[in-house]
Amino acid sequence: MFATFRSNGEQFYGLVANGGMIALSPEFPQWKTLRNVIEAGELRTLAKAGQGKAVTHPEGSFTYEIPVPDPEKIICVGVNFPDRNAEYKDGQEAPPNMSLFIRFPRSFVGHGVPLSRPPESPQLDYEGEIAIVIGTGGRRIPEEDALSHIAGLTLCNEGTIRDWVRHAKFNVTQGKNWDGSGSIGPSLVPFTAPAQLADVGLETRVNGDLRQQDRTSRMLFPIARQIAYISTFTTLVPGDIIVTGTPTGAGARFDPPVWLKPGDVIEVSAEGIGTLRNGVVDE
Amino acid sequence: MFATFRSNGEQFYGLVANGGMIALSPEFPQWKTLRNVIEAGELRTLAKAGQGKAVTHPEGSFTYEIPVPDPEKIICVGVNFPDRNAEYKDGQEAPPNMSLFIRFPRSFVGHGVPLSRPPESPQLDYEGEIAIVIGTGGRRIPEEDALSHIAGLTLCNEGTIRDWVRHAKFNVTQGKNWDGSGSIGPSLVPFTAPAQLADVGLETRVNGDLRQQDRTSRMLFPIARQIAYISTFTTLVPGDIIVTGTPTGAGARFDPPVWLKPGDVIEVSAEGIGTLRNGVVDE
Repeated sequence: MFATFRSNGEQFYGLVANGGMIALSPEFPQWKTLRNVIEAGELRTLAKAGQGKAVTHPEGSFTYEIPVPDPEKIICVGVNFPDRNAEYKDGQEAPPNMSLFIRFPRSFVGHGVPLSRPPESPQLDYEGEIAIVIGTGGRRIPEEDALSHIAGLTLCNEGTIRDWVRHAKFNVTQGKNWDGSGSIGPSLVPFTAPAQLADVGLETRVNGDLRQQDRTSRMLFPIARQIAYISTFTTLVPGDIIVTGTPTGAGARFDPPVWLKPGDVIEVSAEGIGTLRNGVVDE
Repeated sequence: MFATFRSNGEQFYGLVANGGMIALSPEFPQWKTLRNVIEAGELRTLAKAGQGKAVTHPEGSFTYEIPVPDPEKIICVGVNFPDRNAEYKDGQEAPPNMSLFIRFPRSFVGHGVPLSRPPESPQLDYEGEIAIVIGTGGRRIPEEDALSHIAGLTLCNEGTIRDWVRHAKFNVTQGKNWDGSGSIGPSLVPFTAPAQLADVGLETRVNGDLRQQDRTSRMLFPIARQIAYISTFTTLVPGDIIVTGTPTGAGARFDPPVWLKPGDVIEVSAEGIGTLRNGVVDE
């Protein structure tokens, strides 16, 4: 599993190992970030280079960054699990197409780094999701070929400032783009077989309580269809991230709503992808 | 006036002159793009370096690119002129906050490059706008200081695939992000005085017919307020582009609607900023 991390102010990429990280970026100056490795189609070369190597950065000497720190784009899919559409209580049928919005990389932190609750709002909320990273780019990618365009899998806590999502007439932009309000990670798991996505359990826990739980097989818009639809209008390039949708059960859906607060610990887990864990701090 | 252009497959930046371009990027290898010049706070150095120089690339030997080709983010303000809110006919009052959406740089071409009409929809529409480029970054920029964070001004034809704007339940993402569906340019005009934005006439013409006409003094959310509001949630960085809103009169508002088609010429003009002209081709 590949990761990007920071130690002593310097950014590295490498492999996750028992007890820490094996930094590999110093051996590959031609590739500045994991995005460049993916563009070159050389994730396997990187994995081989790490075989048998010792940990270079033990636990405690580094912090995680988001696995691809410099993606050209991060596209998020909304309202993609059963009951999520009903949550909106607007009497509308499920829409024929998926809802999409965009997040900036700076709205995410890495695994283990606390999410920021801003002074402007107490309504910080979680949304656990699986994220895919594009390996082979393309435009108008056919749905039947779409999964072959994925380089790897990771997790996302698509943290949201809930009242700012509906601040204006259209669009969720401002509620979804607070600096450091969400997280991606912990690592990038190479995607080699469709079974890694076909029927994967996804769970979100807050302080150990199970809040969200569903399976990828129940997505309204499966991931292959997401890639096909998105690439209809925009060219996907290596390193692009698609955040594939969250199950029902965010804090906004409780009565009364339950927002995240400093001291909370949020864990997003998926079978075969790992666990993304973050605390919360007041900015 | 600064511009980015391409000649013989190579990208340059420099100054617009009579009869063509004065390429300056070869003299400043430390700055790869105009974004880097802006980050360094050295637009004036660039202007001085071009004084008295001869045209290096005469008309016909280059094509324009968008002035800052690699911005970290492009944020667009929706529904920002009188009568635009009424156009939605949803009985809602004007909202308390501005609507925001995000476009990827690849959804824009430069001045003189035709807009792409995709085979998936005939509903290519224009939206003429003034765009600002951030010079000094910041977070939670006070409205009274906001204009001092602007490096320069340019124009945007915020071209839209109209039926894809309402493809899904929320968000205009997919209708606003077709590759090459809009344009930015022609050049970057240094911003040195508030009067350059205070009461500027903005017009859009299609094949010479005036379709949109308004003044910046009538914006519902003035540009200083845009910078303050956006920087509340996201850190603005040098080179970021804010597209500040379009007047009433897009093709979607005619009865029946009038869409752009190959052969049309769209001109977006603003006093002191210039004219952005693009044709249309079938992709």
